[in-house]
Amino acid sequence: MVGYAFMGAAHSQAWRTAGRFFDLPLAPDMAVLCGRDAAAAQAAATKLGWRSVETDWKQLLTRDDVQLVDICTPGNTHAEIAIAALDAGKHVLCEKPLANTVGEARAMVAAAERARARGVRSMVAFNYRRTPAVALAQRLVEQGRIGTVRHVRAVYLQDWIVDPEFPLVWRLQKDKAGSGALGDIGAHIVDMAQFVIGDRLAGVSALTETFIKERPIAGASSGLSASASEQRGAVTVDDAALFVGRFTGGALANFEATRFATGRKNALRLEVNGSAGSLAFDFERMNELEFFDGADDPDTAGFRRILVTEPTHPYAGAWWPPGHGLGYEHTFTHEIADLVRDLGAGTDPSPSFADGLQVQLVLDAVSRSAEGGSSWQSIEEVA
Amino acid sequence: MVGYAFMGAAHSQAWRTAGRFFDLPLAPDMAVLCGRDAAAAQAAATKLGWRSVETDWKQLLTRDDVQLVDICTPGNTHAEIAIAALDAGKHVLCEKPLANTVGEARAMVAAAERARARGVRSMVAFNYRRTPAVALAQRLVEQGRIGTVRHVRAVYLQDWIVDPEFPLVWRLQKDKAGSGALGDIGAHIVDMAQFVIGDRLAGVSALTETFIKERPIAGASSGLSASASEQRGAVTVDDAALFVGRFTGGALANFEATRFATGRKNALRLEVNGSAGSLAFDFERMNELEFFDGADDPDTAGFRRILVTEPTHPYAGAWWPPGHGLGYEHTFTHEIADLVRDLGAGTDPSPSFADGLQVQLVLDAVSRSAEGGSSWQSIEEVA
Amino acid sequence: MVGYAFMGAAHSQAWRTAGRFFDLPLAPDMAVLCGRDAAAAQAAATKLGWRSVETDWKQLLTRDDVQLVDICTPGNTHAEIAIAALDAGKHVLCEKPLANTVGEARAMVAAAERARARGVRSMVAFNYRRTPAVALAQRLVEQGRIGTVRHVRAVYLQDWIVDPEFPLVWRLQKDKAGSGALGDIGAHIVDMAQFVIGDRLAGVSALTETFIKERPIAGASSGLSASASEQRGAVTVDDAALFVGRFTGGALANFEATRFATGRKNALRLEVNGSAGSLAFDFERMNELEFFDGADDPDTAGFRRILVTEPTHPYAGAWWPPGHGLGYEHTFTHEIADLVRDLGAGTDPSPSFADGLQVQLVLDAVSRSAEGGSSWQSIEEVA
Amino acid sequence: MVGYAFMGAAHSQAWRTAGRFFDLPLAPDMAVLCGRDAAAAQAAATKLGWRSVETDWKQLLTRDDVQLVDICTPGNTHAEIAIAALDAGKHVLCEKPLANTVGEARAMVAAAERARARGVRSMVAFNYRRTPAVALAQRLVEQGRIGTVRHVRAVYLQDWIVDPEFPLVWRLQKDKAGSGALGDIGAHIVDMAQFVIGDRLAGVSALTETFIKERPIAGASSGLSASASEQRGAVTVDDAALFVGRFTGGALANFEATRFATGRKNALRLEVNGSAGSLAFDFERMNELEFFDGADDPDTAGFRRILVTEPTHPYAGAWWPPGHGLGYEHTFTHEIADLVRDLGAGTDPSPSFADGLQVQLVLDAVSRSAEGGSSWQSIEEVA
Repeated sequence: MVGYAFMGAAHSQAWRTAGRFFDLPLAPDMAVLCGRDAAAAQAAATKLGWRSVETDWKQLLTRDDVQLVDICTPGNTHAEIAIAALDAGKHVLCEKPLANTVGEARAMVAAAERARARGVRSMVAFNYRRTPAVALAQRLVEQGRIGTVRHVRAVYLQDWIVDPEFPLVWRLQKDKAGSGALGDIGAHIVDMAQFVIGDRLAGVSALTETFIKERPIAGASSGLSASASEQRGAVTVDDAALFVGRFTGGALANFEATRFATGRKNALRLEVNGSAGSLAFDFERMNELEFFDGADDPDTAGFRRILVTEPTHPYAGAWWPPGHGLGYEHTFTHEIADLVRDLGAGTDPSPSFADGLQVQLVLDAVSRSAEGGSSWQSIEEVA
Repeated sequence: MVGYAFMGAAHSQAWRTAGRFFDLPLAPDMAVLCGRDAAAAQAAATKLGWRSVETDWKQLLTRDDVQLVDICTPGNTHAEIAIAALDAGKHVLCEKPLANTVGEARAMVAAAERARARGVRSMVAFNYRRTPAVALAQRLVEQGRIGTVRHVRAVYLQDWIVDPEFPLVWRLQKDKAGSGALGDIGAHIVDMAQFVIGDRLAGVSALTETFIKERPIAGASSGLSASASEQRGAVTVDDAALFVGRFTGGALANFEATRFATGRKNALRLEVNGSAGSLAFDFERMNELEFFDGADDPDTAGFRRILVTEPTHPYAGAWWPPGHGLGYEHTFTHEIADLVRDLGAGTDPSPSFADGLQVQLVLDAVSRSAEGGSSWQSIEEVA
Repeated sequence: MVGYAFMGAAHSQAWRTAGRFFDLPLAPDMAVLCGRDAAAAQAAATKLGWRSVETDWKQLLTRDDVQLVDICTPGNTHAEIAIAALDAGKHVLCEKPLANTVGEARAMVAAAERARARGVRSMVAFNYRRTPAVALAQRLVEQGRIGTVRHVRAVYLQDWIVDPEFPLVWRLQKDKAGSGALGDIGAHIVDMAQFVIGDRLAGVSALTETFIKERPIAGASSGLSASASEQRGAVTVDDAALFVGRFTGGALANFEATRFATGRKNALRLEVNGSAGSLAFDFERMNELEFFDGADDPDTAGFRRILVTEPTHPYAGAWWPPGHGLGYEHTFTHEIADLVRDLGAGTDPSPSFADGLQVQLVLDAVSRSAEGGSSWQSIEEVA
Repeated sequence: MVGYAFMGAAHSQAWRTAGRFFDLPLAPDMAVLCGRDAAAAQAAATKLGWRSVETDWKQLLTRDDVQLVDICTPGNTHAEIAIAALDAGKHVLCEKPLANTVGEARAMVAAAERARARGVRSMVAFNYRRTPAVALAQRLVEQGRIGTVRHVRAVYLQDWIVDPEFPLVWRLQKDKAGSGALGDIGAHIVDMAQFVIGDRLAGVSALTETFIKERPIAGASSGLSASASEQRGAVTVDDAALFVGRFTGGALANFEATRFATGRKNALRLEVNGSAGSLAFDFERMNELEFFDGADDPDTAGFRRILVTEPTHPYAGAWWPPGHGLGYEHTFTHEIADLVRDLGAGTDPSPSFADGLQVQLVLDAVSRSAEGGSSWQSIEEVA
């Protein structure tokens, strides 16, 4: 695993736990954690359960005890590491967004295709797909339970940088993060929506905004919190990104990602309205899915609050009895379980790098539209 | 009162009731109801409490016992009736949207200005402003309780025409209704948002869609329901309208109005995020306002579900003890109470025709953007 | 109508409004309002829409223009007025609780039976039965949609006397109110529960408590608010009453009424669990009913939030389109509409005085149990 | 660890995980899992991460590599194992309820006292105390944020045995489980309530019921699900238990535990009303705590939905950023983290066996009251 901050901790918990609850064809061996600061990396490895440490990720590619590289670093490093790893015959799990630019993402897809021909697999880590409620939503749409999709409404609302004195962490720097709310959290709702309705965005018209233009240079950070220093620097990414758009099948899209929704901590919400029913989800209540079944008798029709903890629900049967909910980290555990099963079966994991590129193309269209006076931007289909 | 369908019934209840709960300077006399079908109009007048009937609205302007004309007809008739009434020295209350076109709306504003010089008043009926929770939201924003507004997120979701066999009622015909979801319900959220944050939309980028292009010609209709006939006609208005935009003060706008949100009956929702707090409202729970106060201790901060039924809340003190909620019709009763107070005091009611024109300019910009490939459309300020 | 405070205002609105929305066989004539203070009564009559005034309720019984007496006074006066009115051949609508004692209630039932033989009708005003969501709940239970009832859980939570300085209004005096939370709000949930499940309580084990033993003597009061004076007097009623019990059909009961639930303004909640489904209701969201249908596929089963505003829902069709909710006062309007229909049809209104006595017997059993160390108290069936 | 079913899996996950997120003074070594069936125990040990297996729990007491015995077996075995382990100098963590009878619980407390004198610690596993929202509730009460407690309302609603054909698993047999809903889930709300308000129940008046008297003899079971056989046997425990009661400080108690609340999967709810505020919690939304602060301005007072995921909230700082919720299993991880810290520090873990006995005395009083016609039963204080 490369990187050991917020995402690294989440992935480590998933690697440690997946085999305890799911029957896996392979037993993960947490061989090596990689970080530039040897002491810090060693401390993290001990804490997180990795049995050795490297300070140069290139070393991972030479080790026989590494079959898979899990990339948990900022987006500007994804392409180089992933391509090298795939070319070295290592499976790759790469955090989202796949890359900081469409060009990088295309190169990564090409590398993934090359690798695939040799049985080397790749996956991009859109963990929210693995929320049981989201997977159930996808299943219900696929079963036709809501009919033809008319509307997809998605927001991802956070508030961790509302304070203008919050420091300029790497997530606020374009050279490291690629974009701001757009790529960090907007990417999640784009992927989730495309996954749930089984269609892709065809075009968008967008706005972005940076409310706070300058911030204190960051000191140490962990997770989404950080300390500040005296100097100031320019915020080079968006604080919020909004767009309207169309899916290829005719559904209308309304998307918004922001880090300025005071009081909303992690409100990833999706609502899908179809000709025969509707679905609604909010990650702040991640164990619930709301479902309106248009086939219900009007006298008793209403949005059903489904507790997605039944044995027949996606992933839920591996865990606790009904009503005993899961948490954020379980989305990663499910991701690892699915990945290891695919590796064992020799099948392609999903979402693929191509799926990651498809999301990247949407993000790129959003950026271009926002820079071009909200003009309409079509989105090509990844072959 | 001209017209006696859904809106006519709501206004009548308001005229009958306002003086029972609010201390009014004038006692409304429900003089005459006007409808083209004499028998139907007489039946409605008896039912709704009007003491006489006319079949030609022009007669109202000649009657000494009519001081105010309340216009509850489809939008294509608003301008003619309102201008004539104002010029005849009658106060006017006009249902929203103010008119079907910007041109008509401008003429109405001009008439209102002329009339105003003679002490004749006019008001456009954006009743949702008078929901206690919405009025409280406006008060909190004005008091600075949420700081600088960053985001305004508004949707108005209905589902009454999801069925493709639902007939082609007047609300689906451009010549009568001007537009579809946009003018009917989109107008409400535009007005409400501008009212609550005290700022106006500066520009938009929009999409509209008509999912069902043809429908059965309508038979009889009442409220939002109707029977169908065998013939089919073209739907000439939008089923859904979405836009992103900017307020002049820098807040970002995300708006959506649709009649295709299966299971959402009257989900008029507004969320406002400011630098110091947030507000959220859903008309399906109209007696509640959610408020996040950024000044709260982080340990106990959270969205507060305020039951807007306290004596100090707007309008609420006139009614029942705390926790004993109000309904949809009360928004009209509050509207009439405010109007009559202004008439008694010789002050201008609000929202004015100019406010109605300001909303109309937004709707017009949305239409132009949607027709022009979602291009950005600026919105002028009404003087 | 006798009395013109909180309940008088609610009843007046109902009498004025019922015929505007419901087709009634008789047109209510709001003949006379009765109050001891002539000037205050006259002011109230003008405000509330009554055309004359009396200061002695006995005068109502001698007037030919009075066919029905609507009793909105404190409970200690119900029996005398109701019995006299019935014996004088006037129909009677009596506020709940029916009486302050079982003895009075029995005498009222006897008078109602005598009157009924002469075509004179009586009704006790448990208005919450007429909430559309509650009436729908009753219908679903009757249709067998939740199977055999296992649990009835009801609370009625208010907080208007949490402040120890809130004055000693008549509702806190046993000689006037009979009891405290028990009779005032506990009576409502007892009636509602018995109505919804179609069964009666067979026995209870109870607790009551008076948290604040002395309060300032009250000055003027209105609704549930009041001003205080310097002197103090003893609170002679319960602040809270709780009981567990059994229905005759085997369902378990868990009931609680309190005026000390800080932050709960009017939280009248009912949950019914049956062998095939469940229902849940909260008056703070009175337009909603939650329904769990055990027949749903486990994958998509969940509590449905039914917006009880559809044309086929009880009472709702008379009002506004779906999603446009009703308020507290509509429960009274429905009550009057039902009553007038029964008077027109010559049928017995419901709930009857016998139903009121049945509730009174429960309240009496609760009091006896609470005074007797929570011992079990059986409840007889009213013939 | 003795036992490896539902509770064993939960404890194992906690033992594996606690040290990954919390800084612990000791590193848990998962030495040995004990189960009667050697093959099944070995499979479980492999799956759950234990390095050896025993088939007789007495062997654990002789092993030097065992310092603590974690008891996850049915209640009828707790006393024997716990007392022997403590007397053998092993620390003990014992699942709730502490024992099946008061007598056993007293003996266990005595053993714990003996052991304590030698530095050997004991803890009863009321895991729900370690839900961050519950721990926050306790903190707020302790800080006086809700003033004097007036009401404690607690329900624990499940529905896993509503089907009469659900088999007779050990949890439905008095000789193994001691009682039914009462001891299994009622024990949790009794402990949680006593913990949160810092007071103990002084007396109760109760009802219990067994709705389904006979069930198929059970085949294999796991978690809360099981398969059935053809034979039938008597259900010897309660399906539901309800009581009203009083705390020593004067607060009123309203408690209910049932396995027959169709549609409620794990609805452990607690509401506490105090003179200055209120708290409400529902485990189905375990990351949220509702708090009404009576000190708020009435205009903006309302129940706050606190997402208990802030760094300053109990336990939450060890995990993910705000808004990224936890699940059921984390309550166990927190329990183990607290226990290990106490072992490292040489302090007494909480809740103690004495706390467990205090809960047992409540359960016993409930049973006695239910058997004695709901008569009042006082509850002694554990010294």
